[in-house]
Order: sequence, then C-alpha cells, then structure tokens
Amino acid sequence: MDISHIEHIGIAVKNIENSLPYYETVLGLKCYNIEEVADQKVKTAFFKVGQTKIELLEPTSEDSTIAKFIEKKGEGVHHIAFAVPDVANALMEVASKGVTLIDKTPRGGAEGLSIAFLHPKSTGSVLTELCQ
Amino acid sequence: MDISHIEHIGIAVKNIENSLPYYETVLGLKCYNIEEVADQKVKTAFFKVGQTKIELLEPTSEDSTIAKFIEKKGEGVHHIAFAVPDVANALMEVASKGVTLIDKTPRGGAEGLSIAFLHPKSTGSVLTELCQ
Repeated sequence: MDISHIEHIGIAVKNIENSLPYYETVLGLKCYNIEEVADQKVKTAFFKVGQTKIELLEPTSEDSTIAKFIEKKGEGVHHIAFAVPDVANALMEVASKGVTLIDKTPRGGAEGLSIAFLHPKSTGSVLTELCQ
Repeated sequence: MDISHIEHIGIAVKNIENSLPYYETVLGLKCYNIEEVADQKVKTAFFKVGQTKIELLEPTSEDSTIAKFIEKKGEGVHHIAFAVPDVANALMEVASKGVTLIDKTPRGGAEGLSIAFLHPKSTGSVLTELCQ
C-alpha cells in the first residue's frame, strides 16, 4: 500500500467548544473548520499541524459511535487516518492480506474525502481509516 | 507555542515482533530502527510516514508504564508527540497556561530527542509529549 502521510488523527471529545481553548490557546493551533457529518452523527473541528490534521469528534446523538466510544473509554484518541492515492484499491489490497474491513467500499467523510475504516481487531487495536 | 508538526504517534503493543507484519506487510511501512530505552523500560520500533513517525512501544518489564497501560486499556494509541523548537521553553509556556506537567524539565527519549510529557488531565485525555 502506498501511504503518503498521516492525513489526520481523530480525537473523541464530549464538547468541541470546551476543547477549543486547549488546542488554540495552549497548543497554539488554529481551528480552520467546524463541520457536521450528519450520517456519522458527529460534529468535527479541524486543526492543521504540519502535514497532518487533528480532527476533534463530538457526538451529536447518543447513538453516535463517538458517544459510545466516550461512554466506554472516555475522551481521547479515536482513530488514525492514513492518506492513500486510491481508497478502493487499498481496501482490496488489505482485505487480500486478511484485514477485516468495517467499510467494504469507500464512503464520504468530512472535508469531502473518500474514506473507509479497517477493523481494530486486524490493526493492533488501533481504529484505522484510509482516506483520499 | 510553535508546533511545527506531529513528530510521532506512540502505540503500545505487547510484542513488537508480532506487530511488525501488520505495519510492514499490510501498511507497507518500513521499520528503520528498533531501540531499547532502558530508563523507560520499553523497546521501541520506528516507522516513517511522511513527516511523522509511528513508534511502537513494547514493555520490557512488568512495572513499565507501557505494561500498566496495556493491562488497563489494552494495546492501542498511547501518546501523541508534537515537535517544538525548544522543549524547556514550551514547558514553561504551557505550565503558565495551567497545564499539569509530568516532566518538569526535558529528559532524554528514544532517537536522542529531548522530550517531556504533559499530563492527560490537562490535555483532553490525550497523553501528550513535546519533543525537539
């Protein structure tokens, strides 16, 4: 697989507004976009750190996967997303190597990206996203 | 604070040898260094992904903080490390903004870096490292 860089790190937070002061005032990062992804039931906030973005994920519904994650594990790192030139090809490749897919085909994510998740049971317990 | 990029993402694993096939064969990354950090009681393996490294952390002792992390939370993302030009200055700055420090002064980490950890209670539950 041809991974160019880490596209983003997804971090689950209870409330984006409450989390902004740490990222902006303490770390000195600039939030350049806040966006709701309705089908994921999340609100997202993005910061650029070199090549990589930090994506804060706030649940907008109690049955959001992010709400369930926070309930089980608390706030913290939720997933790592690798940039690949072609998500569909990358999915076929990792599936052929025995990785369990959450998304069998690419779907739309925040910022207009084409994305797919791999199951953490196949990725050393790190929820992993491929995006293009 | 002047963060240039994400220097690395630390991932706790039970056994580096068992984890290598996923990172090398599935993700296609190349492990370029395996190193023991005796005072941290860990063995580390490094992969470069664009500007950022993935650092696998295997405990070398049962009383390693990584062993305790895995016992409590399982394998997975352990910390995020931001690259800053001067760790000592950055520590003074974040402390003045109310962040609780794990390391009050920089110390030596893997790959000869000067590092310091911030307490996750001040960083939205993300164990955060500054390094230079």
